[in-house]
Amino acid sequence: MDYLFYQPELLHGADTLSTEEAIHCVKVLRKKAGELITLTDGAGSFYTARLISASPSGCRFKVIDQTTFQKPKPDITIAVSPVKHADRFEWMIEKCTEAGAGTFIPVLCTRTQKSNIRIDRLKKISISALKQSLRPWLPEIREPMQFDELLNQFPNSARLICTAEGMPPIQWIKETNTATHVVFVIGPEGDFTIEELQRARHAGFLSVNLGPNRLRTETAAVAATTIAAAFSA
Amino acid sequence: MDYLFYQPELLHGADTLSTEEAIHCVKVLRKKAGELITLTDGAGSFYTARLISASPSGCRFKVIDQTTFQKPKPDITIAVSPVKHADRFEWMIEKCTEAGAGTFIPVLCTRTQKSNIRIDRLKKISISALKQSLRPWLPEIREPMQFDELLNQFPNSARLICTAEGMPPIQWIKETNTATHVVFVIGPEGDFTIEELQRARHAGFLSVNLGPNRLRTETAAVAATTIAAAFSA
Repeated sequence: MDYLFYQPELLHGADTLSTEEAIHCVKVLRKKAGELITLTDGAGSFYTARLISASPSGCRFKVIDQTTFQKPKPDITIAVSPVKHADRFEWMIEKCTEAGAGTFIPVLCTRTQKSNIRIDRLKKISISALKQSLRPWLPEIREPMQFDELLNQFPNSARLICTAEGMPPIQWIKETNTATHVVFVIGPEGDFTIEELQRARHAGFLSVNLGPNRLRTETAAVAATTIAAAFSA
Repeated sequence: MDYLFYQPELLHGADTLSTEEAIHCVKVLRKKAGELITLTDGAGSFYTARLISASPSGCRFKVIDQTTFQKPKPDITIAVSPVKHADRFEWMIEKCTEAGAGTFIPVLCTRTQKSNIRIDRLKKISISALKQSLRPWLPEIREPMQFDELLNQFPNSARLICTAEGMPPIQWIKETNTATHVVFVIGPEGDFTIEELQRARHAGFLSVNLGPNRLRTETAAVAATTIAAAFSA
């Protein structure tokens, strides 16, 4: 596979590429009718399809094979405070998608600085990273949520709040190795308040760290995803 | 510590900030004579010093305390192919510095695309990441090296070449957990050639992967550093 097309409507029987993908298919990859392409629905499947027509104004295809993958375990949710510079948050979305995150939730903490989260733009970045990394799973990007609301979510998952004083990876990897869903909560540039950390522990979150070094918010999100995915089954 | 000044000449008794740091000290932090600052030499020490004079044209200080840290184990060397877009390589230097890399070696592989490595610029980025992450260790950034020359280096270290077919982290973390120095070799955007992988194995390099997902060159460098640092002593 040299290029992965994204067509979410494949789940509902779509047989044409989006305009943007059609242009790329014909103008950049120079594909012609009769040639094979690979697509994903972003929901766990790769499809092999034969191009029936190939013009920049529309590419129709016929699926000839489908391979469906099991959802990776653990499923990784990154609940992370927005940061001041939007480009750093966008970079994080790209890298966490590559590294295998399943869901992003922007979390508004006491010390979160005002920032402009553009969910649509983040989704585009995520799709681009999905295609680049040849993954069949498109992460979900949720609307921002208040910190205290998050504390009530995912009662049956392994829920980890990242703080320098938490247990080190060698320990939490063992504690969470049977979990099918792991949620990491990552604080803002000024860190969580002591009260937030207390409320999280009270709500059943485990305090963990991501190694001995102080990491920026966006780096911590990538580190959490990398470590959890690296030790997945 | 709210801000970390970098002054490599502290090792040789320097007692003034660089011009750039002096401007930041006086104009941004609004420090005055008599106040305390924290500095690092980038070689493992933090220094507490009292400002003797504080003007944008020169800040003199007197060291009143020094704390020296043991070099982290394992020491991490990232030998990585340059990538086409310089900004992605620069981003990698920033993130690997934060995550705890000790040395960078740009490695020229068969499929490395021509790119403009500006060592001076990379050093600046690394210093900025050092200050941001409050680390006392400035990574060394070496001149580019040919792949085959690298194969003869570090005969007594744990030497790992990163490839999708290699052993997973859960395994190589165990294999390398007594090493004091770990070297990761990370290939170009088009990957290593089969011959390069064979020569590396023949030279004693262990083939490893960084988890189940395909990662870009620069993401792989950050993932390798993150995983190795997270499981360090």
